[in-house]
Amino acid sequence: MPKTPALQEVIDAAEELWPHSLAESWDAVGLVAGRRDAPVAKIHFAVDPVSAVVDEACDAGAGLLITHHPLLLRGVTSVDASDPKGAVVHRLIESGCALLTAHTNGDSAVGGVNDVLAEILGLRDQEPLKPAEEGLTEEGLGRIGSLEPGMPLGEFASRVFGALPSVAGGVRVAGDQDAFVQRIALCGGAGDSLITAAHDAGADVYITGDLRHHPASEARERARGGRPYLIDVSHFASEWLWLPAAAQALDRVLSERGYEVEVAVSGINTDPWDFVLTPG
Amino acid sequence: MPKTPALQEVIDAAEELWPHSLAESWDAVGLVAGRRDAPVAKIHFAVDPVSAVVDEACDAGAGLLITHHPLLLRGVTSVDASDPKGAVVHRLIESGCALLTAHTNGDSAVGGVNDVLAEILGLRDQEPLKPAEEGLTEEGLGRIGSLEPGMPLGEFASRVFGALPSVAGGVRVAGDQDAFVQRIALCGGAGDSLITAAHDAGADVYITGDLRHHPASEARERARGGRPYLIDVSHFASEWLWLPAAAQALDRVLSERGYEVEVAVSGINTDPWDFVLTPG
Amino acid sequence: MPKTPALQEVIDAAEELWPHSLAESWDAVGLVAGRRDAPVAKIHFAVDPVSAVVDEACDAGAGLLITHHPLLLRGVTSVDASDPKGAVVHRLIESGCALLTAHTNGDSAVGGVNDVLAEILGLRDQEPLKPAEEGLTEEGLGRIGSLEPGMPLGEFASRVFGALPSVAGGVRVAGDQDAFVQRIALCGGAGDSLITAAHDAGADVYITGDLRHHPASEARERARGGRPYLIDVSHFASEWLWLPAAAQALDRVLSERGYEVEVAVSGINTDPWDFVLTPG
Amino acid sequence: MPKTPALQEVIDAAEELWPHSLAESWDAVGLVAGRRDAPVAKIHFAVDPVSAVVDEACDAGAGLLITHHPLLLRGVTSVDASDPKGAVVHRLIESGCALLTAHTNGDSAVGGVNDVLAEILGLRDQEPLKPAEEGLTEEGLGRIGSLEPGMPLGEFASRVFGALPSVAGGVRVAGDQDAFVQRIALCGGAGDSLITAAHDAGADVYITGDLRHHPASEARERARGGRPYLIDVSHFASEWLWLPAAAQALDRVLSERGYEVEVAVSGINTDPWDFVLTPG
Amino acid sequence: MPKTPALQEVIDAAEELWPHSLAESWDAVGLVAGRRDAPVAKIHFAVDPVSAVVDEACDAGAGLLITHHPLLLRGVTSVDASDPKGAVVHRLIESGCALLTAHTNGDSAVGGVNDVLAEILGLRDQEPLKPAEEGLTEEGLGRIGSLEPGMPLGEFASRVFGALPSVAGGVRVAGDQDAFVQRIALCGGAGDSLITAAHDAGADVYITGDLRHHPASEARERARGGRPYLIDVSHFASEWLWLPAAAQALDRVLSERGYEVEVAVSGINTDPWDFVLTPG
Amino acid sequence: MPKTPALQEVIDAAEELWPHSLAESWDAVGLVAGRRDAPVAKIHFAVDPVSAVVDEACDAGAGLLITHHPLLLRGVTSVDASDPKGAVVHRLIESGCALLTAHTNGDSAVGGVNDVLAEILGLRDQEPLKPAEEGLTEEGLGRIGSLEPGMPLGEFASRVFGALPSVAGGVRVAGDQDAFVQRIALCGGAGDSLITAAHDAGADVYITGDLRHHPASEARERARGGRPYLIDVSHFASEWLWLPAAAQALDRVLSERGYEVEVAVSGINTDPWDFVLTPG
Repeated sequence: MPKTPALQEVIDAAEELWPHSLAESWDAVGLVAGRRDAPVAKIHFAVDPVSAVVDEACDAGAGLLITHHPLLLRGVTSVDASDPKGAVVHRLIESGCALLTAHTNGDSAVGGVNDVLAEILGLRDQEPLKPAEEGLTEEGLGRIGSLEPGMPLGEFASRVFGALPSVAGGVRVAGDQDAFVQRIALCGGAGDSLITAAHDAGADVYITGDLRHHPASEARERARGGRPYLIDVSHFASEWLWLPAAAQALDRVLSERGYEVEVAVSGINTDPWDFVLTPG
Repeated sequence: MPKTPALQEVIDAAEELWPHSLAESWDAVGLVAGRRDAPVAKIHFAVDPVSAVVDEACDAGAGLLITHHPLLLRGVTSVDASDPKGAVVHRLIESGCALLTAHTNGDSAVGGVNDVLAEILGLRDQEPLKPAEEGLTEEGLGRIGSLEPGMPLGEFASRVFGALPSVAGGVRVAGDQDAFVQRIALCGGAGDSLITAAHDAGADVYITGDLRHHPASEARERARGGRPYLIDVSHFASEWLWLPAAAQALDRVLSERGYEVEVAVSGINTDPWDFVLTPG
Repeated sequence: MPKTPALQEVIDAAEELWPHSLAESWDAVGLVAGRRDAPVAKIHFAVDPVSAVVDEACDAGAGLLITHHPLLLRGVTSVDASDPKGAVVHRLIESGCALLTAHTNGDSAVGGVNDVLAEILGLRDQEPLKPAEEGLTEEGLGRIGSLEPGMPLGEFASRVFGALPSVAGGVRVAGDQDAFVQRIALCGGAGDSLITAAHDAGADVYITGDLRHHPASEARERARGGRPYLIDVSHFASEWLWLPAAAQALDRVLSERGYEVEVAVSGINTDPWDFVLTPG
Repeated sequence: MPKTPALQEVIDAAEELWPHSLAESWDAVGLVAGRRDAPVAKIHFAVDPVSAVVDEACDAGAGLLITHHPLLLRGVTSVDASDPKGAVVHRLIESGCALLTAHTNGDSAVGGVNDVLAEILGLRDQEPLKPAEEGLTEEGLGRIGSLEPGMPLGEFASRVFGALPSVAGGVRVAGDQDAFVQRIALCGGAGDSLITAAHDAGADVYITGDLRHHPASEARERARGGRPYLIDVSHFASEWLWLPAAAQALDRVLSERGYEVEVAVSGINTDPWDFVLTPG
Repeated sequence: MPKTPALQEVIDAAEELWPHSLAESWDAVGLVAGRRDAPVAKIHFAVDPVSAVVDEACDAGAGLLITHHPLLLRGVTSVDASDPKGAVVHRLIESGCALLTAHTNGDSAVGGVNDVLAEILGLRDQEPLKPAEEGLTEEGLGRIGSLEPGMPLGEFASRVFGALPSVAGGVRVAGDQDAFVQRIALCGGAGDSLITAAHDAGADVYITGDLRHHPASEARERARGGRPYLIDVSHFASEWLWLPAAAQALDRVLSERGYEVEVAVSGINTDPWDFVLTPG
Repeated sequence: MPKTPALQEVIDAAEELWPHSLAESWDAVGLVAGRRDAPVAKIHFAVDPVSAVVDEACDAGAGLLITHHPLLLRGVTSVDASDPKGAVVHRLIESGCALLTAHTNGDSAVGGVNDVLAEILGLRDQEPLKPAEEGLTEEGLGRIGSLEPGMPLGEFASRVFGALPSVAGGVRVAGDQDAFVQRIALCGGAGDSLITAAHDAGADVYITGDLRHHPASEARERARGGRPYLIDVSHFASEWLWLPAAAQALDRVLSERGYEVEVAVSGINTDPWDFVLTPG
């Protein structure tokens, strides 16, 4: 008969899915707060450990919040509650809710952020844009794969738009709507740094978030006959897609180990933008 | 009777408007290519020295192209024409068209990028967000000033949208459309680094371009009762506004010195985005 | 009628005694955990924020623990309770006990660690060994002053031994017991780095803690006719002396402001050593 | 018939025992002063090349002084005799006495400082705490091994006390006198940096010198059921133990090569402390 | 029937002779200016891309100038024609003359600067002084080989003097004219950094340019019985020798590929010195 | 009646002439070896502390050798006599001869290397090329002054040649022999780094030693109508000129203080070059 796991047992299951060894060297992943012997009956998933999300998880009685973004990436010497990050630490500990981060390890893993994004967009034969230095050949940052059949850029952009959770800013595209595209590169989150990799890998399109004027313009200027076209999506939305799949995968691993938990995905949109004005 | 200036005489006039001493220490402003004794009868203005813009200027017979963004900011050891930047150098020199950059000096100057943006949006009593270390008190990065009268955020966002040249991505806003706003901070281009200055200066709204998820989200999390609200505009559009004013100012200074030139502003949209899909 | 202060009001009083501006640039002082609007009826003082001390304070119902040593000096990206420092953060927040650090600001201040040590040893006309860069001339690291009258080194060492709280390791002395000493330099805590300052200031004796073989040997080799002699005391004991005086001073400032608190000094010896074997 | 070696021949024999390749990269070992063709009839051994030791060696007519600690570790641009280190260089050269350093190579070697310490304390199956990057598996910094049979901590501390040359400061211990200990880690000299290695290797006790408050306290706070207990010994004493063994080993190697020398170990205690006051 | 190559085809031929992979990591070799599809009927070779040389090449109608020294080694953010280097870029592009650099790759290659120098001086069995990290064993910086038969230093210095193009400063020699020499090390250009390698390789003589007082004096002080003697030659002259051989080799490779070009070597002496006053 | 000074008294006199505070921050000047209470009856002056010079001084019974170049500029951890620098330390200490360095302080001082060179060449109104950061306005690196009357470059070069001690390499000149020159800049030793200062100061000629191909060629390329012309002299010779003046000045200061010493200037040429082959 299924039993409630302790926090340490949930961490062990998460390690199987999103191993620590896949995290980039500058990253800070793993347990951020919590007691490892506490029972965890409810697990909440979200992209950002901001106060509204933490309140939602605590109010729901979750024993663990798993987020994609780290709370304390740069290192702190204080958790003073008058600072927003310190306030989050206080709320979590006072409520008995642990916090676990799966960031670049969650990006690179098989079944991680990039794999889920590739799958939802219908790519085939996907492989990493920047393979993990240590790990399986299927692991690494970004993905590139093929649409079967290919389609016009405008139609593919609509598919991207429809697949992502709706946020105010929508989806921006650089390229000709009628151009035929088939080879698709992508990177969830902010992928400025993989633009060149997408170009070199022969992509027709590169999808990522937070693209700024200079990197985007330089990429357009260097493009081969206009390719790769660029699709700029919400940083948040591109990572949110992973949450339901991650929740389901963790639930499955825990079940196989004889544990029962309740999983939930945060309904809070933490994309920072509320409304948008566009031409036409 | 007015005469055609040599390039050096145009540079002297530009120095009066956008002095070198206002450039940030990491920047590379001033003459990038050209012979200082060549006559300059036509001057072209643009944001980005990309190939389409350079072709436009050269085809129009311009003797000088003045851009906001530097061509060679990071330093090059080659101008090989098979590289996009080297191709621009070849086209310019082969066509006898000089290239002059007014970047952070053009941002900080009185009548520069930020002053023009503030004026078009109707601000009063504007002053720099980050005053120049050496210079007048009116000079520096960013501006902050007041709307008289104030208005709801949604109405002000529409004013911003209407004032900027139309680009695909439009204008994204974080905040409540009905909130009343009066104290406005802004920074043309990419102004992540001045978010805290806008907050500390008590702004109701902060307008800039290229805002990414993490800086925007952290600013939203730290906001005082939601303020400053954020308005994310096109990097290109926010700087383009300055071009007509800059062209007119340079024309005026040259006239006062007894020279006659023809000035033109590039009609090419170098915002990298072509179309956008948004909800609703 | 006296009232219970909120945490913020206690912090304001502490700032008057041990101002932030006196802390060294590498240090991390101030509020480490706690909610600034919580009432603080009991304040506990200790040298080290280790688990036994934190348990003592929480069990006593303290609303604030003030320690000399920082908990998170090097910056952390996690407060996982399976790590000793994370465990302390959990215990504090779960118990509603705040933590405040007064480290190098507590050393340098008038009435701080070094002043208390100098006073207890009977020094006169004491002044800092390394004056504060910004601050009063009475503020800074270490102290130097005079005994009136002077006495043999052995007798003075006994005075030091008697004045400090008793710890296993006792007091080690380098020098001739019968030598007459009068000019005394000292630095609470670990003062390797001020040995040369004590030498240059003409001290007969230098008292500090944690002196290692190489700095001590080099100082002995460079000594002028054997001076300064060295007295190595317990790092903990030399700083503990300050606690009762600090508690009393904070109590007084709060009283003057119309507040009433209960203060206590930890009775736990956090010197790491438990017993000692010595010759003779 | 045995003959007197030249300095170079003694250096060759020392290289066999304490090879240069075992020295840490930051260290400065080998010949510090002397002419390699000078005959060496007497060799003096000591821990520290301080003036009293150098005078002792020169007065005894030694042709070579071998010390554990380097004279010029940090690099000098002058040997001015008014500086203590320059005075040592003058005395050595004027007296025709060479100086050779065997520091971290002498620590790591088989039969080196750590091996001798382990043997005198009765350890079995000893191996390095931090194996040499290049070298035999028996070479490296620190040692860990087992007592057969184990014994109470208090009794083992007495054994340590009895084995070391007597210095004023004695031996400080952190832990319960009655606790049973068997697995012993040690590092001659100042071993702060190997505390974690001793912990991770499962030691019951870690013996070293110059332990300061913060490293010792953090180790106590992280200890597993109080282990490893800590024994803080004199930096000097822990290294002095090696000298008689080193002198004998070098004498033996030279004999095997057909040379005869007279060896002596310095009787000067260069521990900086002269007397101590302890409780009880 | 032979045809005129495009610039890209000449670059491919040059890559076969002086591969990019042989360049030092700090160097900037390859195409500096020019359009890769332009036809190249005449190729000019020189040591330095200074204005007189560039004018000579352009006036002769060359489509490509190949120099040993890089024009923009340190990276530029402007090619303003009022700067000497910018003036060169303008002259080249205006005249349709490309610029290609073969610097440390031209030094290290088989048949490169050092091989040509060794051959002209009559060395046998020459090999690199500092072999290339990646490449053939015959590739690398400097060369060392043997004279058969050996001869007095004075006679060998005369051979060096006679072999080099005449420059004002002539050839300076450190050593005894009558000493017999046979093993010769050399490095074209400025070879201070290989003096120790020449010494360690057992050279009787080391030939290079730009030797300064301190490196030369230290080498003389460390010399073994006076060897290696030093011969200081003109930096320019030692590299100029390679030009005719390089021109011929490139001509041959292009011929083999079915192309016809005209090659020429600059007659301009870019050694900076014009006359010299010497004793006797 | 005059008496023999102790070394400390000679050092005090030297400090008056060539104060420590004028040395560059990277330099190592002052006493390198010697006992400050030893009597100094004979003082030897030389440019380089090489073995032949040290032997000359010791054989002459000098109690002090004063050199321009430092012996241990880069810092040493050993003075092993099998190393050339260690051999010098042994010879000095064994012979009771001290070593004092006056390097960049000797360059910058009034009456120093550069002043003597300017005076011998007949300059008027000389001032430093790079004034000392702290010091008199007459102190600093390099000098610039005027010839009265001016003369052709060829004639001036002959004056330079005649003024310097004769060395094998002679004097190299870049420029037109018949050009009229009047404003002369100079820097004894190796003055690559002051070429731009000489150019900016409007010099007709710049005289220094150890000029290499690239700095000299770049200076020629940037020259204004060929100016400054360059005269490359022996590093050694340009500094040697100072020795007789320095010896005389020190003798005078000591006399004024009531001391009598014998001074001598080394006759050994430590220019590294022995003979030269030149065209014509």
